[in-house]
Amino acid sequence: MVMHFFSDNATPVNPQVMAAIAAADRADHGYDGDQWSARLDAAFSALFETPVSALWIATGTAANSIALACLCPPYGGVICHEEAHIVVDECGAPGFFTHGAMLMALPGEGAKLSPEAVMNRLSTIRPDVHQVPACAISITNATEYGCVYTPQEVAALGDVARAHGFGFHMDGARFANAVAHLDCAPADLTWRAGVDALSFGCVKNGGMIGEALLFFGPQREARAAQAARFRKRSGHLFSKGRYLAAQILAMIDDGLWLTNARAANGAAQALARAIPTRLMHPVEANELFVRLDAVEAAALRAQGFDFYDWGDGAARLVTNWSQDAASVAPLARALQALDDG
Amino acid sequence: MVMHFFSDNATPVNPQVMAAIAAADRADHGYDGDQWSARLDAAFSALFETPVSALWIATGTAANSIALACLCPPYGGVICHEEAHIVVDECGAPGFFTHGAMLMALPGEGAKLSPEAVMNRLSTIRPDVHQVPACAISITNATEYGCVYTPQEVAALGDVARAHGFGFHMDGARFANAVAHLDCAPADLTWRAGVDALSFGCVKNGGMIGEALLFFGPQREARAAQAARFRKRSGHLFSKGRYLAAQILAMIDDGLWLTNARAANGAAQALARAIPTRLMHPVEANELFVRLDAVEAAALRAQGFDFYDWGDGAARLVTNWSQDAASVAPLARALQALDDG
Amino acid sequence: MVMHFFSDNATPVNPQVMAAIAAADRADHGYDGDQWSARLDAAFSALFETPVSALWIATGTAANSIALACLCPPYGGVICHEEAHIVVDECGAPGFFTHGAMLMALPGEGAKLSPEAVMNRLSTIRPDVHQVPACAISITNATEYGCVYTPQEVAALGDVARAHGFGFHMDGARFANAVAHLDCAPADLTWRAGVDALSFGCVKNGGMIGEALLFFGPQREARAAQAARFRKRSGHLFSKGRYLAAQILAMIDDGLWLTNARAANGAAQALARAIPTRLMHPVEANELFVRLDAVEAAALRAQGFDFYDWGDGAARLVTNWSQDAASVAPLARALQALDDG
Amino acid sequence: MVMHFFSDNATPVNPQVMAAIAAADRADHGYDGDQWSARLDAAFSALFETPVSALWIATGTAANSIALACLCPPYGGVICHEEAHIVVDECGAPGFFTHGAMLMALPGEGAKLSPEAVMNRLSTIRPDVHQVPACAISITNATEYGCVYTPQEVAALGDVARAHGFGFHMDGARFANAVAHLDCAPADLTWRAGVDALSFGCVKNGGMIGEALLFFGPQREARAAQAARFRKRSGHLFSKGRYLAAQILAMIDDGLWLTNARAANGAAQALARAIPTRLMHPVEANELFVRLDAVEAAALRAQGFDFYDWGDGAARLVTNWSQDAASVAPLARALQALDDG
Repeated sequence: MVMHFFSDNATPVNPQVMAAIAAADRADHGYDGDQWSARLDAAFSALFETPVSALWIATGTAANSIALACLCPPYGGVICHEEAHIVVDECGAPGFFTHGAMLMALPGEGAKLSPEAVMNRLSTIRPDVHQVPACAISITNATEYGCVYTPQEVAALGDVARAHGFGFHMDGARFANAVAHLDCAPADLTWRAGVDALSFGCVKNGGMIGEALLFFGPQREARAAQAARFRKRSGHLFSKGRYLAAQILAMIDDGLWLTNARAANGAAQALARAIPTRLMHPVEANELFVRLDAVEAAALRAQGFDFYDWGDGAARLVTNWSQDAASVAPLARALQALDDG
Repeated sequence: MVMHFFSDNATPVNPQVMAAIAAADRADHGYDGDQWSARLDAAFSALFETPVSALWIATGTAANSIALACLCPPYGGVICHEEAHIVVDECGAPGFFTHGAMLMALPGEGAKLSPEAVMNRLSTIRPDVHQVPACAISITNATEYGCVYTPQEVAALGDVARAHGFGFHMDGARFANAVAHLDCAPADLTWRAGVDALSFGCVKNGGMIGEALLFFGPQREARAAQAARFRKRSGHLFSKGRYLAAQILAMIDDGLWLTNARAANGAAQALARAIPTRLMHPVEANELFVRLDAVEAAALRAQGFDFYDWGDGAARLVTNWSQDAASVAPLARALQALDDG
Repeated sequence: MVMHFFSDNATPVNPQVMAAIAAADRADHGYDGDQWSARLDAAFSALFETPVSALWIATGTAANSIALACLCPPYGGVICHEEAHIVVDECGAPGFFTHGAMLMALPGEGAKLSPEAVMNRLSTIRPDVHQVPACAISITNATEYGCVYTPQEVAALGDVARAHGFGFHMDGARFANAVAHLDCAPADLTWRAGVDALSFGCVKNGGMIGEALLFFGPQREARAAQAARFRKRSGHLFSKGRYLAAQILAMIDDGLWLTNARAANGAAQALARAIPTRLMHPVEANELFVRLDAVEAAALRAQGFDFYDWGDGAARLVTNWSQDAASVAPLARALQALDDG
Repeated sequence: MVMHFFSDNATPVNPQVMAAIAAADRADHGYDGDQWSARLDAAFSALFETPVSALWIATGTAANSIALACLCPPYGGVICHEEAHIVVDECGAPGFFTHGAMLMALPGEGAKLSPEAVMNRLSTIRPDVHQVPACAISITNATEYGCVYTPQEVAALGDVARAHGFGFHMDGARFANAVAHLDCAPADLTWRAGVDALSFGCVKNGGMIGEALLFFGPQREARAAQAARFRKRSGHLFSKGRYLAAQILAMIDDGLWLTNARAANGAAQALARAIPTRLMHPVEANELFVRLDAVEAAALRAQGFDFYDWGDGAARLVTNWSQDAASVAPLARALQALDDG
């Protein structure tokens, strides 16, 4: 039994992904000249029901930053949530890749941006050279608090982006969890809702190394070409890219990405049902933020459960692809016991 | 039989490295908080007979650039060879990571820098704010032309670096091949010769993903801390870093790095012996640059050998860890036949 | 009568400054090799009663950004007020000069930072590589709302800076107005209170072109040398720097800077006395933020007074060195008439 | 008599320029919102017989760098001469403003680029992401060695630029001297020859502070808008820009720029005639590079003439707007005496 609930980064690699790595372990062209890398565009185009330009990228941080560098000039601003990963957990990577663009961070429930908050922020920007102009919007789906934007919510922000000529980026480190929760078409949550660039996460969902960066729409090829430059220039063009491409293909080829995300989401729901009154945010993906005092946290840890504290009196529990409702039952019982006790 | 001679990036992963990946495939802390990453400093310190601060890094390009960013300010210059990988094959990555430092590219036989060339270049720089001051020296060992600097040659450049207060970086994408050629202590070729930072290559030598960046000397910890910032900030801090650390450890733990490099070097020597008069540079590592006209190149390709043209009338042949003298005998015979014919 | 109240940038050049320009109009060495530039360190050292390293700089934006680039690495953060000029009026210049450092913007009454707000923000930053570490504090004195930090208030922030090893920068675009208001020693408001770098404003206070950037303390020479590199590298090393140095010297040599600031402050006080109940912030320098509806604003403009609206129902009035209480009497009367009417 | 021949930066300001500054010394809008700044486009459009978008810029270094940042992406390269000011005298400013673009420096007689040299360099660049693609060409006219490109020579490079889709920049710190030498239309030397952006120098030619950056052609407005962002972001948007605009207008309004350049060129010719056999480059502008041994140099300095040594056995003499053939007669005689002696 996996007792770790501190991060979906802690999990091992899904066996199907590991098998794909082994299958790619033969001579082929270097960088992204191999047969696996060559299949990415087609595979993602099929999955998203539209032409997609796709690149493998080392990490989610790199995928996010390269996407933003393609959507925002150095003197521009990116509207985002104040709790977004790009703001608080990337050591300023967007500033590095964009050469100093400003993150325009806004509050919002569940780490979600609202069109109203965006419009209010825009109203404060004078159209002169003294002020940084907003040039892009970036959202995370599922959010950093485990909440999910619906296609309608994304589209409402997409409308704002289109109306202002902004690029629209989605950090999808847990995109699979969002789609699994909504049971919608990936297209509905992205390009049909105005998204131009998606960081498509794999590692938290069972991969070893490698995420995908996807571009949609008429500018997808130009942006992907620019992203390929940024990827090389930032030291992200691996010599043996086939080992990344193969993982990504394994993840999407037969729906593994959704199978994995459903398992993780299901495990989270099982935990959520155990402690409905302790939840600080709706549980819509694979993260739970729960009220838990120090004594309770210590009690759980004494039983072998590990997780991160989330400030005073709260904790974050993260489930993952290798779990399901059954496998997290011991923690569910332990949590329930806190309230029953 | 492997017929590819176009790149050591084309080879599969060494089985021992693949086994190490499998052994690391269990839950542990994310990023570099795992037990494998924690062992890197000690493993490299033992190998180099001195305290070493080591980080895994995605690629050689990233390792080189992060090293340079730790050794040179944005307004400084890096003295290097005009054929260096950092100059011609990294899409300007050093400019990106250093925020615009200037590469001061010099000529030199076999892609090797000489102390005289460096001193001559330094003599042209006025010590005023109008000119970019040199702040670091970077060399590649083995060089881009498959030549090897001896410890004495490195030390002569190290003396120049120390005398001027410059940082001294070695791009060791093929460091293993250089050490295997010289049969010297790794220490002699690096910190004992004044090297401050080494990009220690693994991928060309049998790894899948991941190189090591090593810092030596009294500033090693401060520089490694800075490099850790740059690594995160450039999107290179993998969520599951243990899969990189495990590869690197597998490579050095039992001398696999030298075993592999000796095989590749031996294969190159076997080819070199077949065509001594066609060689454009001494063959000291795993690369051969050979005079070959278009008809000859076509004849070889018709026999199933693949390699890169190197301008008009020349070709580059690269051997790798999965080969040895025996396995390249068919190409050796085919080459010899060109001259015998 | 000067009817403009929209900016202290709109005013002509003080005659003594213009005379100094004329006096410098003869052949001398280029850049900062001239006799006027050579006098800056001594002149500011006398004024501040401590050794000062001083550079002329084109603009306040450049002075602020170059100062921050000397105090904060690219992966660091600068704690500042959310209404600070560096945040809202410099088109991201700090991000450009620092290569992407993050502005950590905090609220605070009158555009003033409090030590409590700073400490609260610091408490949210985890000491790991994922988060941007705070590395500097920047305040504006007088603030963007015309309020003045006392020496005690500056020192309280200086204590926080020193305790954390942060650099401490003061944007003194209206430093003269602050000193004139407090009637204190310039030293008390700066280095004695922990300030490392001061953007010493001249242009708003009667200069034509050129501000001064001052460094205090034991690192002043190293930082000034670095700033000189940044100044050249950013295109700010004028060919004929003597025309800037002469202006700055004229401003400080016989107390002109305080004479001018007292005039501007006096004019502001005269206006403040006319409309005490309309003031949105204490009037401590040469700016007034006043509640004024659209009808009232139109009425004033119809009488020939010009000023900027400040959002709905408010206006900003700026006085300058060329005015005094008498010269602004017409506006004072017109303002008073609004309330009497 | 002015005895300085070390730099045209050493000269005082032309009286007509000084008068223009005085005339601008009254209240107007700040930044570039004033009436003088508003006239720049029209004035330069008339001078160049085509629509021009013009900005005042602090220095030639800034004008060059901002131009290049508008013509070349961060991952691109700028083809230029290895002795160009942007390469050797700007402390890496182009790398700063372009965020790391590479200067591709080529040799060439008299600091002039030839189309052949450019084409040869281009032939070495592979069209893959590993190599920096050339994106712009920059030349200096008159060159750093006082030589002048003819309209035909510029057009030949312009053809290369257009054929490859490159931007084409001219550093015209001494553009006036080039036009005066050729007695051609400014248009013939610039946009009619394919130039997209011109740094139009004023300071060396009698100005105090401020150069102009001009954009030609169909993209001129978009590029000027981008340049305006870069200008603000780099701290170059002066609060009182009218004092720069007025100088530039004074320079071009009645042909003062050519009058001044003709005087400087004439003085240079007078010196050149005195020592035809010592000249290292054709004298086509206001600079002479002359063979002069240490004893001769000392002898001249003993007579009160000042100039820079130019390596061993050579010196650089620079004439300026305040001189003419008569005023440099003493130096001409002294030079002649060296050979007669």
